[in-house]
Amino acid sequence: MSTVSLDQFLQLRISRRCQYFIENNRLLALVYAQQFDRPLLENLFRLADAVRSLSETSDGRLFLRSLLPDRRAMLYFTQPSTRTFLSFAAACHILGMSTADVRDPATSSEVKGETRQDALRIFSIYHDLIIMRQPEAGFCEKIAFQMLSWPGRKPIINAGSGTDQHPTQALLDLYTLHRCFGRAGGLDHKKIMLVGDLKRGRTARSLAYLLTNYQGIELILAAPDELAMAEDIKQHLRENSTTFIETNDMHAHLAEIDAIYMTRIQDEWDQGSKTSIDYSRLGLQAKHLTALKPHCYILHPLPRRREIQTAIDSDPRAVYFDQAENGMWIRAALIAHMFAVDKDILEH
Amino acid sequence: MSTVSLDQFLQLRISRRCQYFIENNRLLALVYAQQFDRPLLENLFRLADAVRSLSETSDGRLFLRSLLPDRRAMLYFTQPSTRTFLSFAAACHILGMSTADVRDPATSSEVKGETRQDALRIFSIYHDLIIMRQPEAGFCEKIAFQMLSWPGRKPIINAGSGTDQHPTQALLDLYTLHRCFGRAGGLDHKKIMLVGDLKRGRTARSLAYLLTNYQGIELILAAPDELAMAEDIKQHLRENSTTFIETNDMHAHLAEIDAIYMTRIQDEWDQGSKTSIDYSRLGLQAKHLTALKPHCYILHPLPRRREIQTAIDSDPRAVYFDQAENGMWIRAALIAHMFAVDKDILEH
Amino acid sequence: MSTVSLDQFLQLRISRRCQYFIENNRLLALVYAQQFDRPLLENLFRLADAVRSLSETSDGRLFLRSLLPDRRAMLYFTQPSTRTFLSFAAACHILGMSTADVRDPATSSEVKGETRQDALRIFSIYHDLIIMRQPEAGFCEKIAFQMLSWPGRKPIINAGSGTDQHPTQALLDLYTLHRCFGRAGGLDHKKIMLVGDLKRGRTARSLAYLLTNYQGIELILAAPDELAMAEDIKQHLRENSTTFIETNDMHAHLAEIDAIYMTRIQDEWDQGSKTSIDYSRLGLQAKHLTALKPHCYILHPLPRRREIQTAIDSDPRAVYFDQAENGMWIRAALIAHMFAVDKDILEH
Repeated sequence: MSTVSLDQFLQLRISRRCQYFIENNRLLALVYAQQFDRPLLENLFRLADAVRSLSETSDGRLFLRSLLPDRRAMLYFTQPSTRTFLSFAAACHILGMSTADVRDPATSSEVKGETRQDALRIFSIYHDLIIMRQPEAGFCEKIAFQMLSWPGRKPIINAGSGTDQHPTQALLDLYTLHRCFGRAGGLDHKKIMLVGDLKRGRTARSLAYLLTNYQGIELILAAPDELAMAEDIKQHLRENSTTFIETNDMHAHLAEIDAIYMTRIQDEWDQGSKTSIDYSRLGLQAKHLTALKPHCYILHPLPRRREIQTAIDSDPRAVYFDQAENGMWIRAALIAHMFAVDKDILEH
Repeated sequence: MSTVSLDQFLQLRISRRCQYFIENNRLLALVYAQQFDRPLLENLFRLADAVRSLSETSDGRLFLRSLLPDRRAMLYFTQPSTRTFLSFAAACHILGMSTADVRDPATSSEVKGETRQDALRIFSIYHDLIIMRQPEAGFCEKIAFQMLSWPGRKPIINAGSGTDQHPTQALLDLYTLHRCFGRAGGLDHKKIMLVGDLKRGRTARSLAYLLTNYQGIELILAAPDELAMAEDIKQHLRENSTTFIETNDMHAHLAEIDAIYMTRIQDEWDQGSKTSIDYSRLGLQAKHLTALKPHCYILHPLPRRREIQTAIDSDPRAVYFDQAENGMWIRAALIAHMFAVDKDILEH
Repeated sequence: MSTVSLDQFLQLRISRRCQYFIENNRLLALVYAQQFDRPLLENLFRLADAVRSLSETSDGRLFLRSLLPDRRAMLYFTQPSTRTFLSFAAACHILGMSTADVRDPATSSEVKGETRQDALRIFSIYHDLIIMRQPEAGFCEKIAFQMLSWPGRKPIINAGSGTDQHPTQALLDLYTLHRCFGRAGGLDHKKIMLVGDLKRGRTARSLAYLLTNYQGIELILAAPDELAMAEDIKQHLRENSTTFIETNDMHAHLAEIDAIYMTRIQDEWDQGSKTSIDYSRLGLQAKHLTALKPHCYILHPLPRRREIQTAIDSDPRAVYFDQAENGMWIRAALIAHMFAVDKDILEH
């Protein structure tokens, strides 16, 4: 691998780049949602279930904390995200890791003219794992590739790279669907509606992508024309024989779906340009609940604004707070996988 | 309890609201100083004494750290307070808890339009305890009530809510007095002078309130007229037969008191409006020490400014730095109580 | 010692001040690079080697973490430095200590008018060790002296005090040289060139100072005239019979040296005033590598800018990233020394 330069690496197709970050069926780095195939997903789901189950007792929690007490994780969050930060910190602490963090971009050593490569190389010397969230698309994969050549070959997890990738969010969304349908024959052959800003919302994009790992999924992509799912994802769905339809009337489809994945309108990207989108057509309200099947699950990556009325929170089909919890367990599972303590957990 | 709405709850008298946050003589949430009655205070004092005593040896410290190593606390400090933050962090670490924190209001997920209710619900999913300091009066009690209805019913501690409540400060002040008079027959029947901004200083207000749990206390409330103790507290003192007098000449009473509680002039609340208060009449200086009884203790919640000359620091009656230490022990005791490891500590 | 006032202490010569911070051959506080003599340096180097070696196995790491799990360190970094902060945090975590930190000067209690003395006294109550980095020269020594008189006599480590002192940086630089020459007869009698801003760069100043602990060192001080090493250090070199020459042509000496210590141009101190320094004459580039001896080590305290081309990073003689790693080990060793667990480590 060392014979390929960074520039050559970045020219490779995504499937080839993914191969650089896996060794003996174990992730060396998690950079892209595309790294998850169905066997890996199912391994991680099983592991997350075990972590959750162990966490129910004090003995189980102490066992988990005994797995990685001698390891130090760094949370490099120069793009703030309180929830993702705390979720990863909790995941580390569940496994007994100690953590250190950088959260303020302004305190970076970059003010002294140092490159971020130099800074991250040093951080990777001090720590056993880098968990990185920063605003620049493509930066995480560059660093992840370079880390393979630095002594120690420390692992890295992409906790969100701009508009680009947020693979653990996709992972927790899929894990939540997996759990919802656990007693209903699994996720295969389910009909799922994705709603909202499908163009810019990276969570919906990644989820649509990953759902092609399952059999017979039918997708309904509900968005205003301006925010429709981009062609690259639709092309991937077609290539993988995942059926989808597009609509801008989410409410017309409520009765037929097994799950609805609401997303936030990302209007912070609309810099100045006023849109004429009718947001009332993208919301789920208490009055719509009767239209849903008795077991139609309601997901949202959070934070939410007006897309889901708070009156829905107490409905048993609302699982968006479970998603947040699932995120913590699946992140702990991911770290356990990367540090090869997965067997210890499964065999306990 | 779940049959009462938040709005109904907020209409209840304080004594009724307190009942929501206690179950089987154990605090589910600490929101108000009014939650402390004498039996609870004495339990916590005994527990804090035990934590302090155990902390004197390495074995004792390791035992304490073995109590809650599988628990995670979140320090949600969107109103900065370095000392209170560090005191709680130390209290958590003494018991072996891991901690995560949010200290910068600007990094909050609120920037994406999320409500604080949603944010705190998620934080309570990731953690076993929320310790919250924020600037809005009344907010902590709302969240504490809502947390009772969320799955997990995670405990919360109010570490300061605006001008409103700061119950652990009141607790540590009382614990300090309790310790000072431990060998002098206890706190009952002592004469205590409170000095300074009694109108806005929530620490003096809470302390006066809690002192009604003791027998035969005599209070001297020393403040300029503009900063006199408010009527609500005086009414509470009268109802509980706690004697008090008011004065604006603290120095005239120095010879007769058993303890003096100095407070900081909160002039940061005087936005723009110049006051004509003569601060020299509110200060304790080295020259006043001879007027005090040989065992008259000098307290101050800190930070101090000019109210107490630094020359007084080395006087054995000055216990304001002990207060800071006591705060750490009593906070550890409070957390131990809430997590029901108090017996383990007392029986060790 | 208590008979000396702070003002009297500050009037003492540095060698006398150093004596206040050592007791039974153990540092009570590390404030000045001048506190390191050769026996102490060699003890710390041996200890750091042992910590590093133990860290190679999980058993060793767990042993190290078992040394100080009942101790709490405070990282008081009101002058931001991400790398130094993370290095110390890692050093604490290696030994099992828990950490709390203050990194934002604006969140300090100083906003309420409290003195920093009061604040630090309280922080020292909550913690077993203060690690302090702040921008004011001379402040750390004042606090360190005062801490000796406060109950608990908690230890303090200077992690950088303005332009003044950064003793652990000097320590790690020397430790790196010690390791580089470990198989080549040690550091005595080596020829070392220091390059760059020798006037303001405290790392080069401290290193030159400490090198007088070794026999037969020859120094080449390479700097533009405007940035030449100051007279105080040159006087110290003369008094200790350490040979040196001065030059502004670093490249003329590349072939004769055993190590080159590059430093960053500290032009952030040039407030407004444009200098006419020719930076190209202060850089090491790939084309210069052939001029160096096969075992001439290349050091840099980092962060670097243009002084060292990144193409040099992969040369085996480049040890500047090793310096960062060495810093973590030697800081752990220093803390282990201060907490008297050095024997446990050496005998394990």
